[in-house]
Amino acid sequence: MKQKSDIGLIGLAVMGENLALNFESRGFTVSVYNRIHPERENAVDRFVNGRGAGKNFRPTYSVKELVESLERPRKVMMMIRAGQPVDEMIGQLVEFLEPGDVVIDGGNSDFRDTERREEQMEKRGLLYVGTGISGGEIGALTGPSVMPGGSPAAWPLVKDLLQSAAAHLEDGTPCCEWIGSGGAGHYVKMVHNGIEYGDMQLIAESYALLRNYWQLDNDAIADVFAEWNRGELDSYLMEITSEICRRKDADGSWLLDHILDAAGQKGTGKLTVAAALDESDPLTLIAEAVNARFLSAIRNERIQAASLYKRENIISQTAIQTEALRHALYASKLISYAQGFSLLRRASLHYDWNLDLGMLARIWRKGCIIRSVFLGQITRAYEATPSLENLLFDDFFRARIQDAISAWRQVAAVAIAEGVAAPCMTSALTYFDGLCTTSSAANVIQAQRDYFGAHTYERTDAPRGQFFHTDWNETGGSASRIYNV
Amino acid sequence: MKQKSDIGLIGLAVMGENLALNFESRGFTVSVYNRIHPERENAVDRFVNGRGAGKNFRPTYSVKELVESLERPRKVMMMIRAGQPVDEMIGQLVEFLEPGDVVIDGGNSDFRDTERREEQMEKRGLLYVGTGISGGEIGALTGPSVMPGGSPAAWPLVKDLLQSAAAHLEDGTPCCEWIGSGGAGHYVKMVHNGIEYGDMQLIAESYALLRNYWQLDNDAIADVFAEWNRGELDSYLMEITSEICRRKDADGSWLLDHILDAAGQKGTGKLTVAAALDESDPLTLIAEAVNARFLSAIRNERIQAASLYKRENIISQTAIQTEALRHALYASKLISYAQGFSLLRRASLHYDWNLDLGMLARIWRKGCIIRSVFLGQITRAYEATPSLENLLFDDFFRARIQDAISAWRQVAAVAIAEGVAAPCMTSALTYFDGLCTTSSAANVIQAQRDYFGAHTYERTDAPRGQFFHTDWNETGGSASRIYNV
Repeated sequence: MKQKSDIGLIGLAVMGENLALNFESRGFTVSVYNRIHPERENAVDRFVNGRGAGKNFRPTYSVKELVESLERPRKVMMMIRAGQPVDEMIGQLVEFLEPGDVVIDGGNSDFRDTERREEQMEKRGLLYVGTGISGGEIGALTGPSVMPGGSPAAWPLVKDLLQSAAAHLEDGTPCCEWIGSGGAGHYVKMVHNGIEYGDMQLIAESYALLRNYWQLDNDAIADVFAEWNRGELDSYLMEITSEICRRKDADGSWLLDHILDAAGQKGTGKLTVAAALDESDPLTLIAEAVNARFLSAIRNERIQAASLYKRENIISQTAIQTEALRHALYASKLISYAQGFSLLRRASLHYDWNLDLGMLARIWRKGCIIRSVFLGQITRAYEATPSLENLLFDDFFRARIQDAISAWRQVAAVAIAEGVAAPCMTSALTYFDGLCTTSSAANVIQAQRDYFGAHTYERTDAPRGQFFHTDWNETGGSASRIYNV
Repeated sequence: MKQKSDIGLIGLAVMGENLALNFESRGFTVSVYNRIHPERENAVDRFVNGRGAGKNFRPTYSVKELVESLERPRKVMMMIRAGQPVDEMIGQLVEFLEPGDVVIDGGNSDFRDTERREEQMEKRGLLYVGTGISGGEIGALTGPSVMPGGSPAAWPLVKDLLQSAAAHLEDGTPCCEWIGSGGAGHYVKMVHNGIEYGDMQLIAESYALLRNYWQLDNDAIADVFAEWNRGELDSYLMEITSEICRRKDADGSWLLDHILDAAGQKGTGKLTVAAALDESDPLTLIAEAVNARFLSAIRNERIQAASLYKRENIISQTAIQTEALRHALYASKLISYAQGFSLLRRASLHYDWNLDLGMLARIWRKGCIIRSVFLGQITRAYEATPSLENLLFDDFFRARIQDAISAWRQVAAVAIAEGVAAPCMTSALTYFDGLCTTSSAANVIQAQRDYFGAHTYERTDAPRGQFFHTDWNETGGSASRIYNV
């Protein structure tokens, strides 16, 4: 083993362990440390005597020992729970680190915390990297998608390490590139997770329609998903959902039928929706996906509601094929990505990150949960038009969506008629219809706001930025007063 | 004029002026103060020589003078912009106030700021009230709906003042009651505003359907709204929207047709959606309403999208009557209130406010923007069952919604088929369908999460709280591991 380790890894839960094994497998020597729980087996010993046995791992039993075991400039990576634990660990690390050393947070930290921590660390001459890591347990072990941001000076120091551990595309491109300064890496990872919520919910809605409207059993649904996975909808989530549908329990029945329909979440979906509110960005699909999980979780209320209301479905107009659902899923998925990338574009302008949106889609092509063929088209779209305001404006996607519209409407109408909740597919369509409307009913809202709150309005026949007020209830004053703001 | 004033009012923008006039009209003597803008006319002089001339107003030109002009214990009400200005004004006030004096914030402050300020003030022996005031300009003048919360000891001191100025129901009940401790008043006002966003958007969607599907002109739409306003949909917003539709511009054309469809917002809708995320509460309708405003505001993107995509509508199944829309609007509105009151119920438990939900509906019956006949039914529902988990579980509403379901589905399907964006009506229906589903497709999501992240799942055939993990891709281990948490 080398005299000094190449990297120190703190936190030996499953993601940390797997990432440590990943680094070691690429030829790095890794010091490992884990907080000592008085009542549990020492995680460091368990790891170096277990999965790490016979490999280039150096066990350490204090933060001081960990730091002293590292080659300078030191690189310490935290794989610990986001929030207070990260601040506490940083508080311990700064006692022993020296200027030029790098601290990497590989957890799902709030990007605002990362921005704050980077500033604090740089005041001490330390470098800070907040990196998104996607791919779950397996990705961490075999090559995740890695989204590092923070102190730009840290990138040359950690590039080889992070890119080696990351997934690689067929042409050798690593799924790890520098995202931007401050909290850019964690922001992008947050939106990635939001998109993941949308993808998962859209597949779940497809499942609900295949089961309830098309009356397919789980094996037949698995076949549909497997077939879709051979075309433009080829993605990791489609692949595993096909396997999930097919999976049998010990007694030969479908395992899926025994799984309780109450979905959990760990918070990055909520954060994405809150971030969109901050940017005044209409991120409807992910919001509906997060809300669908909330709704699934209040199972007792659902049981009560179901007992109180009699289903009164209306007759859906025509029998439609599952091919229509494939179109609806594709179109809805594109809306979700168009919204997610719109949010990234706005945030990039707001925080001055200069995000390369095409590059982001590329590093999500492998390693991460939302990996798909589809992302290649997104990279292509941004390479063709880097300033693209909305993915729906790209020629390829335009043609594809135009082709899908009728089928998409039919599927949404069927879901509505049959009472199969498909909040994301229908919301995607109402967003699309709203986006394609040059004269929406928002004029009514502006008139109402001016009526009761004198909030003023703009006119279609006057320049933007000229504001008018009407004395609606004629309590005096002129009918239309003009304000220039 | 009395030697000392009954209340001091800070901030003479339109809401502050009207509230000052309101207090004075109820027999109170009011000291007024406004920050001095070097380049503008002095607002205090403008007011006391203008709308306040000949009335019991005492002009003051410094915070010190304002405070010294008041009867003890002093009551100072701030009607200023939320955020930093409130903290700055408090900073000035505490120099001159004495223990037992009351500071009232009548703006739309974030409830967390109000909680923080109350704590700070109580440390100095001062009392603090954060009060929601709804009713716009006119309400502030003639009697708004008032939602005070904060230091409980302040209530007896300000009760007479606030209840006098508030709107009153026919039976004399004032639309002002003590809401709860801490930030309860501002929280309730925030949710009130969120509900207002939903109400406005639902009426706008009804307008869009009446115009685009039923092809009615603005006068005919005004007639429809006026008719609806005579029944169970009787509300202030319905009434003014009818007037708005009928209103002519100087040249005789409909004013509404000249109003730009780009809706503004001041932030309480966003805050309501963010608050729902904090409570893990599926507040879908208000979220869609806020997003609809965001979408309306990106008008250039809408124009571009409309130019790129060809409308491909599908044929809607049957001609339906506007009566179906009335049912759809009613049902959607109930969903919005059911969601809003669910959020209030959860927040009340979370923050220990012990909110009286029936009372809230009652004080919204008059004075405020969402005032309606409908709110009377909500009060009745909570009086019948104070512990009601969801308004949809009330017998009256259950029967009403059951009656509306078919029409509601038809309207949503028409909107989908015709490409008329009705995000709130369709989202209300998908929420309802999701709520009435005892076996949703959230089992797929739980399986996916367990597959890629070992997040575990519960089973329908095992007790809640027992968690299972499957080694889905068979990299080793047993098919199903059990965790008890």
